Amino acid sequence: MREHYHEELDDVVDKLVSMTQIVSSMMERATTALLDGQLALAESVIAADDDVDDLNREIETLATDIIALQQPVAGDLRTCISCLRMATTVERAGDLARHVAKTARMRYPERAVPAELESVFREMGQVATKMMTEVGSILAARDVSRVQALELADDRMDDLHRQLFRALLADEWPHGIEAAVDVTLLSRFYERYADHCVSMARRTVYLVTGHRVDEEG
Amino acid sequence: MREHYHEELDDVVDKLVSMTQIVSSMMERATTALLDGQLALAESVIAADDDVDDLNREIETLATDIIALQQPVAGDLRTCISCLRMATTVERAGDLARHVAKTARMRYPERAVPAELESVFREMGQVATKMMTEVGSILAARDVSRVQALELADDRMDDLHRQLFRALLADEWPHGIEAAVDVTLLSRFYERYADHCVSMARRTVYLVTGHRVDEEG
Repeated sequence: MREHYHEELDDVVDKLVSMTQIVSSMMERATTALLDGQLALAESVIAADDDVDDLNREIETLATDIIALQQPVAGDLRTCISCLRMATTVERAGDLARHVAKTARMRYPERAVPAELESVFREMGQVATKMMTEVGSILAARDVSRVQALELADDRMDDLHRQLFRALLADEWPHGIEAAVDVTLLSRFYERYADHCVSMARRTVYLVTGHRVDEEG
Repeated sequence: MREHYHEELDDVVDKLVSMTQIVSSMMERATTALLDGQLALAESVIAADDDVDDLNREIETLATDIIALQQPVAGDLRTCISCLRMATTVERAGDLARHVAKTARMRYPERAVPAELESVFREMGQVATKMMTEVGSILAARDVSRVQALELADDRMDDLHRQLFRALLADEWPHGIEAAVDVTLLSRFYERYADHCVSMARRTVYLVTGHRVDEEG
């Protein structure tokens, strides 16, 4: 019984790690779709969001069943409850990748991002994708020594976000209002995605150590 | 023992209802601060967000203790887990009200919203505030018959959101890029706030009936 129960608990964490991998890949593809104008890729991201929602529900069902039937305490209960919270967070990060993909689709065959800002968004996509992959690795290995590096990546994301706002608010923005609206929202999607990664990393610290770190960045 | 345990469970729900009341009032004050240029009111919203974060942590501690020590099953366990999820959601709605207040503060003594869009934002503020208050009432009374009306309010919010985007993308937007960026983000804050209300209402249906409604609107 006990052994089976720990397998179930590992299963919850594994599913959460799978979610991070899917949501990381979604942001990578959404960024390529956005910057290189690839419609089919945008569609694949939008479709993948259903899988993420399914996994979120599976995790809730599994974790709730473990709590109800196995009555875990201490670290195991903390794992169940933390996985529930993190599943909600990664699901919302998936929504943000979907929003990026929907913007790519809406503007196709045009591009939402002006050419001279492409490199900033490309780096945002790389940082976001890497952060979510890293959250999955930290969680899988329960290696909280790597959380600090994730916070630094988030600082880089904030720099890029500010860089875009400086470009928007410079005197000579030549791309019109529609591009300004797109850039504003896209920049926020990436920045929020990174915030969700930090929130998950901090929650992982709590899961592993029982020591609470302020989750809101 | 049993009686005490149900008191604790009621306490969790009561704290969650308190959170909705605070976060509803935050959005009401943030909207007034934004549209009428009231700096002290904006500051009060930003300060209130700490109380919301504290309540979120209290709810998590309480609900986790109940699960660990009382080992609730069925409806009571559903209540604990649903309250945990809803606390996260209302905490994020509080962040959005704080973002509105921060925009008001950033532009003070100027106004972020052009005069002819004030009435749209005023209605957005009213709809958002009312929706969150209603979520609290639905939760307190466990009266899920009122969820449908909340979905209609969310439809109204989406209409207002679209109305702002039409104004932004009309040929003759005369207010410049900074105002366009502000209006874009503010509109999104209100629209997301309403989404969080719907998500909480649907979660309340699950809490009361055990029947799951897709939480993502």
